[in-house]
Amino acid sequence: MSNKITELFNIKYPIIQAGMIWCSGWKLASAVSNAGGLGIIGAGSMYPDVLRIHIQKCKQATTMPFAVNVPLLYPNVKEIMDILVEEDVKIVFTSAGNPATWTNFLKENGIVVVHVIANTKFALKAQECGVDAIVAEGFEAGGHNGREETTTLCLIPMIKESVNIPVIAAGGIGSGKAMLACFALGADAVQIGSAFAVAEESSAHPNFKEKIISAAEGDTKLRLKKLVPVRLLKNEFADAVAQAEAEGANSAQLSELLGRARAKLGMFEGNMDEGELEIGQVSAMLNEIKPAAQILTEIWTEFLQEKKQIENLNF
Amino acid sequence: MSNKITELFNIKYPIIQAGMIWCSGWKLASAVSNAGGLGIIGAGSMYPDVLRIHIQKCKQATTMPFAVNVPLLYPNVKEIMDILVEEDVKIVFTSAGNPATWTNFLKENGIVVVHVIANTKFALKAQECGVDAIVAEGFEAGGHNGREETTTLCLIPMIKESVNIPVIAAGGIGSGKAMLACFALGADAVQIGSAFAVAEESSAHPNFKEKIISAAEGDTKLRLKKLVPVRLLKNEFADAVAQAEAEGANSAQLSELLGRARAKLGMFEGNMDEGELEIGQVSAMLNEIKPAAQILTEIWTEFLQEKKQIENLNF
Repeated sequence: MSNKITELFNIKYPIIQAGMIWCSGWKLASAVSNAGGLGIIGAGSMYPDVLRIHIQKCKQATTMPFAVNVPLLYPNVKEIMDILVEEDVKIVFTSAGNPATWTNFLKENGIVVVHVIANTKFALKAQECGVDAIVAEGFEAGGHNGREETTTLCLIPMIKESVNIPVIAAGGIGSGKAMLACFALGADAVQIGSAFAVAEESSAHPNFKEKIISAAEGDTKLRLKKLVPVRLLKNEFADAVAQAEAEGANSAQLSELLGRARAKLGMFEGNMDEGELEIGQVSAMLNEIKPAAQILTEIWTEFLQEKKQIENLNF
Repeated sequence: MSNKITELFNIKYPIIQAGMIWCSGWKLASAVSNAGGLGIIGAGSMYPDVLRIHIQKCKQATTMPFAVNVPLLYPNVKEIMDILVEEDVKIVFTSAGNPATWTNFLKENGIVVVHVIANTKFALKAQECGVDAIVAEGFEAGGHNGREETTTLCLIPMIKESVNIPVIAAGGIGSGKAMLACFALGADAVQIGSAFAVAEESSAHPNFKEKIISAAEGDTKLRLKKLVPVRLLKNEFADAVAQAEAEGANSAQLSELLGRARAKLGMFEGNMDEGELEIGQVSAMLNEIKPAAQILTEIWTEFLQEKKQIENLNF
């Protein structure tokens, strides 16, 4: 029972838990890795010294492979890269930046490198830079998002046609059905964010988890397109952004409205009115806070069941 | 080789060609029906007397089942409904309006009724009104679109959980891979628009077909959200809309910018600068003008091949 991705990461199931700011620390990552998937520590919301502690704790909590996700646009990326090498991290997912800058450094240090993209141009660029696999993330994904707004259903086949390295599908995947759909599109694995953001081991504030599981259809929208597009869950802040955008606010005005540290305020500190709440469309289908291992097992079991259903189709 | 949808429509393959303004007249509909799918005449761009001629010609061109799509918001809908009965149309797809208004009338006249929706609320309402099946259309679809912006990958499982009538997936489907993905999500059939808009038999202007097959990623965007959201292909008009929206234009200003008959101007008369060009995201994957029968056969063949691939996965 294996494929290119389970072999690349040496994991049991082709299920990767997305690196998510304020949600995926060592607790979530180690829980997912212990359950047979690939857990990822999201460095995007951590100072370098905090990241180092999370890596060390993760190594204590699991003997299984785990990864760290690094948004390349962050100011202290050099310091983070050194920590990854010093702490002997084996797998790194890079995102939000140019894969040309750090891929060589990581590969030279024996690290498996995966880059997150949302269009063919960057998929080809990442492949050219020598990454081992890519995550192709569709419009329905939570958090920062591609300007093309290409959905996972349209994106994965395009990316598969253009690259020959393994492709991990992301965006809109919170069930075994959706996972199987991505395999039908040619994906070699799936990366799952929102469904793990509400895991018991997620460091998201309980208020945020409750708000996610009570989210309904249409409650997330892609906002702040004049800055960096981001999928936000409806609340006072998101409504204020929507109104400002409808009235033609420019990037400076939106930047002022956004201010600083709003994601922490909402996702980590639990301010559901003023916080920036990043989550995917699939939140509309989530309705329970469960252990990460149970989430993973349920998705995998449904994947196998639905695969049987497809085999039994009367066609 | 059958399922609920092939039995409901008495067709060979669970592939439905979407009713599309300025593209799907009797030529396209009869070609798809003759190839074993369900062809649909799009009444949305036809005066009632023109629609009657298309129905009559379609009946001459095929002995197989075909359907007519009727946007319920159109002013002459009563006249159209009478024509459907007089011309003995067996299957009607209704869209853009309240399914309560005409479903009974159509059912009483022995017509199979399918309603197009983009969220759970209207799926439940359509079921309650007694329709025989629904089309669930995701954000990536061309033309008019749901306000929730839910993608096909997220929409289909939600709809399948909420209704017990058959569900036809639409939006982003132009290949056997995407068709199989929708079946993995629980769909009973697929409705395909963009891929048939560029069929030889499509009445779209050759300029429009050429523009579709040269479209790239990100070239379609959901616009005019302050009026009725519509997915438009990038051109001078779409750029003008994008700019007006970025500057905060209100619905009256957008309505003035849109004016009248722009879809006809672009899609039927071939004005690629000033016309309103409605097409789906999947246009980025289309690169050839082919006969409708070939399009259908290629999709079906790929569907069966990819089904085999899924069966052979090493899991």
